[in-house]
Amino acid sequence: MGMSVSDYLVFRLQKLGVKEFFGLPGDYNFNILKSIENNPKTSWIGCTNELNAGYAADGYARIKGVGAVVTTYGVGELSAINAIAGSMSEFVPVVKITGVPDTKFIKNNTLIHHNLNTPDYQAFIKAYSNIVETTTFLTKENAKKEIDRVLEILIKEKKPIYIALPMDVCNATINETYQEIEQKSDEINLKEAIKCATELINNSNNPAILADVMIKRFNAKEEFYKLLQKSNYPVTTLLMGKDLISNNESLNYSGTYVGKFGNPEAYNSINNSDCPIFIGTVISDINTQGFDLKFNPNDYINIQGNYCVIKNVLYKNVLMKDILNELAKVIPEKNSKKSDFIYYYQNVEKKERLSGEYFYKKLQDFIEEGDNLIFETGIVNLALAKLKIKKNVSVNNQVLWGSIGWATGATLGISIADKNTRTILVTGEGSHQLSAQEISTMMRNNLKPVIFVINNKGYTIERILSDNPLDKFNEIAKWDYSKLPYVFGKNVYSTTVNTCDELDEVFKNVKKEQKDKMCYIEVSLDMFDLPELAKLAIAGDKLDKLAL
Amino acid sequence: MGMSVSDYLVFRLQKLGVKEFFGLPGDYNFNILKSIENNPKTSWIGCTNELNAGYAADGYARIKGVGAVVTTYGVGELSAINAIAGSMSEFVPVVKITGVPDTKFIKNNTLIHHNLNTPDYQAFIKAYSNIVETTTFLTKENAKKEIDRVLEILIKEKKPIYIALPMDVCNATINETYQEIEQKSDEINLKEAIKCATELINNSNNPAILADVMIKRFNAKEEFYKLLQKSNYPVTTLLMGKDLISNNESLNYSGTYVGKFGNPEAYNSINNSDCPIFIGTVISDINTQGFDLKFNPNDYINIQGNYCVIKNVLYKNVLMKDILNELAKVIPEKNSKKSDFIYYYQNVEKKERLSGEYFYKKLQDFIEEGDNLIFETGIVNLALAKLKIKKNVSVNNQVLWGSIGWATGATLGISIADKNTRTILVTGEGSHQLSAQEISTMMRNNLKPVIFVINNKGYTIERILSDNPLDKFNEIAKWDYSKLPYVFGKNVYSTTVNTCDELDEVFKNVKKEQKDKMCYIEVSLDMFDLPELAKLAIAGDKLDKLAL
Repeated sequence: MGMSVSDYLVFRLQKLGVKEFFGLPGDYNFNILKSIENNPKTSWIGCTNELNAGYAADGYARIKGVGAVVTTYGVGELSAINAIAGSMSEFVPVVKITGVPDTKFIKNNTLIHHNLNTPDYQAFIKAYSNIVETTTFLTKENAKKEIDRVLEILIKEKKPIYIALPMDVCNATINETYQEIEQKSDEINLKEAIKCATELINNSNNPAILADVMIKRFNAKEEFYKLLQKSNYPVTTLLMGKDLISNNESLNYSGTYVGKFGNPEAYNSINNSDCPIFIGTVISDINTQGFDLKFNPNDYINIQGNYCVIKNVLYKNVLMKDILNELAKVIPEKNSKKSDFIYYYQNVEKKERLSGEYFYKKLQDFIEEGDNLIFETGIVNLALAKLKIKKNVSVNNQVLWGSIGWATGATLGISIADKNTRTILVTGEGSHQLSAQEISTMMRNNLKPVIFVINNKGYTIERILSDNPLDKFNEIAKWDYSKLPYVFGKNVYSTTVNTCDELDEVFKNVKKEQKDKMCYIEVSLDMFDLPELAKLAIAGDKLDKLAL
Repeated sequence: MGMSVSDYLVFRLQKLGVKEFFGLPGDYNFNILKSIENNPKTSWIGCTNELNAGYAADGYARIKGVGAVVTTYGVGELSAINAIAGSMSEFVPVVKITGVPDTKFIKNNTLIHHNLNTPDYQAFIKAYSNIVETTTFLTKENAKKEIDRVLEILIKEKKPIYIALPMDVCNATINETYQEIEQKSDEINLKEAIKCATELINNSNNPAILADVMIKRFNAKEEFYKLLQKSNYPVTTLLMGKDLISNNESLNYSGTYVGKFGNPEAYNSINNSDCPIFIGTVISDINTQGFDLKFNPNDYINIQGNYCVIKNVLYKNVLMKDILNELAKVIPEKNSKKSDFIYYYQNVEKKERLSGEYFYKKLQDFIEEGDNLIFETGIVNLALAKLKIKKNVSVNNQVLWGSIGWATGATLGISIADKNTRTILVTGEGSHQLSAQEISTMMRNNLKPVIFVINNKGYTIERILSDNPLDKFNEIAKWDYSKLPYVFGKNVYSTTVNTCDELDEVFKNVKKEQKDKMCYIEVSLDMFDLPELAKLAIAGDKLDKLAL
């Protein structure tokens, strides 16, 4: 009996939901790739570069719960490090696996390729140790124990881990039996937390909920809905948790929270509460529109993935699932009035020149139940705030880490993770340039995402963040975007839209074409055609001074 | 008097030879970019992504002696880390500058964008500390002293440095007077080293030189030639030092050293010596073709950039320049017979289908005096070994670090560094895919490199390194390469060649077109059409087993 180390690692990851592995080959990782190809339940998705592969694994993990990216030592792994740091920042469980030279070279400190001039075989794992939850450098002796250890951390913490796996260690034989990873709350802490939370809630007049992305990450959506349905508390979501509630559900939902820059229903629902309940919130600058929130979550009820803080008391090892489940039981039923918000795209007058407002309204109409959406960082992510979504739509963005280029790579991962569902990417053209070649991997794998490249002539978010929106350094190279997919293949519907009429036509075409091919649409907008939120929260009166 | 911190940093770098800075804007680095744009002697080259920007800065530094890349905090800097590690590995003095959030956010540990979920403003500098020579996190108090300190290390060690520069610190005023960086050998060590080296040489019958890239990095070419001319010792160069001697010079040169896999003149010249002198050598696997060298440099005379080792005794602070200069004085003149090697591309029979051998012979004929060549890692770098070069040709490759994708980015940097000289890139198509969008930056800046994309249908170097050359994971997406430049602009001559006749025609056209536009040529070769060195040193008999 027994299994090779790399077979075991692939087997364990497959059991955790990883069917596809992303990355690039390199002579130090061949054994790992062979384990992936030899396992009948897993397959290899070769990407065009390692950063994009990391983004793809991140996107994949957002849908499937776990993702994995394999690169070679030094060059490959360092290229992927930004993607993995993004997964760390946003609690996306990605396994970063590096194929490392044979142990004999490590022991002798041999200067073989992909090393620093004075070899230090620990240099890159040390670099990674700053941006992942845990790292391990496998040996024949520790491989079994270490793989089991780091995978447990991956699943419990929902954060990336790093595994360095030397070529020869891949072939060592280890025992393939393992214990399922158990996730359980500490009973005493859970009881205590419920008691305190219930007390606070019962003594309040108008509890309200601010919900966010960690509910998704820690698989607590079901329990969250139970609590909402039972309590009927007013609820609003932050931008990262955009998709927690569709606008159609019969909940007391007031839409996406954007501070005082719009949607007053949401603003008031939480800020006028005497008992705000924060569930899975990320209190960052952009996610809260400049920390525009009256409360510090820890002063009230702050429920996170595997701990909670109530009145500044920390309860460790309390799973979000469990506390929401228990709260739903003890909280009295209540019939507050259903919120009646209108913070979504409304019909706008049709002019000749296409506007952002017109595009997003049409996009909103285009979205169907169950779609997977990816919104890039920057202007488009601010436009997202106002988008009405249908049932079971998944919205993916990177509001905290905000690495431009992420969305294009993540679209590969999400299209692969969920092949039967429509995947829609909305990216700015500045961001798209960073990782644009990854659409070739989508086409190579016959994936059919619908891609909108919003061309607003430069890094527009940077323009409005700068004192001078016309700084030359925020200009970018002009591309003829609609030609790009044809470099990679023929099975694509690709075009550019400039007018409202063209857009209407294109949406019609996309509905037909999307079944058979990728759709790649360059959407030309004026440079400072900003969504309302970008104007109010960021640009302010800067643009008024420009002679535009 | 006085200068702002970012103005001072830009001013100092300009004085060290940096006219162009590479990178991407981000809201945390605007102040730095403004200092670059405001300095009349410096300018900003916006790139499509940070890794490519890092490669460009690396290429620039290889030509100009110093390069600089500016990114934003977290996302941007981590994307560039592989490029900087490459500069570290290969002794390329690149300054990595990161624009960091305002000090008040650092002090309060505020969760603003581009942070890990639990902010750690030291996480990314710590990651970098593993792959650069020194790092610094600037404050208003330490800025002047620290900038001066790290720039001195940059110049003396020829290795990258990392500077974290918070937004507000940019604006602090510091004294702009500074001391020129002085590079001087330790007199006693230098004398001692010369004495020992001279003794060894005088007691030997046939001293011979193995020369390599550190001669370029430490600006000791002039002194090196002096020594060669005076001594007339047989000399051979490693692959990284390919361009140290052109094949036409009247020196006792036997061409590029490739171990026992070709060029026996070079192999014998050094391995039959009783006093091998190693000058600036990098003794790595690929650079020596599998450590195929009879001697350990430290057992004889090993002269490095700022130290030397003679008979296993280390002499610190001895500059290569100085020791070569002194050796040239004391070594007796000698008239050994001029080497008469033939290790370069010879005429081959012209068939219909284009072969690598035919292409490289024509490329060899195409190269002119003074050209800047860039050879990507992989097959093309092995083909380089046999290329005859003319006077003052600079050859740039990344034999030790070997990060595929580097060459395309480096071509941007080299074209910018040396606008009046022809720049020629030879890359494999697999490598090119990683960073292909950077040709848009070349076109945007009106640069006119000649680019050859060798399309051999996959990661061919990986194929021949693997047990099974037909492993699926070494396949890549098929691109229609010659269409790619037209996505970025019109001022390009782009085509694909499949036959010898087409290649002849294309070289004719390129000679005309190159003056006005970029030339981008896809060179289609068969999958296993390998240069001799790749066959002998790597593939061995693997391919014989395949039914090709």
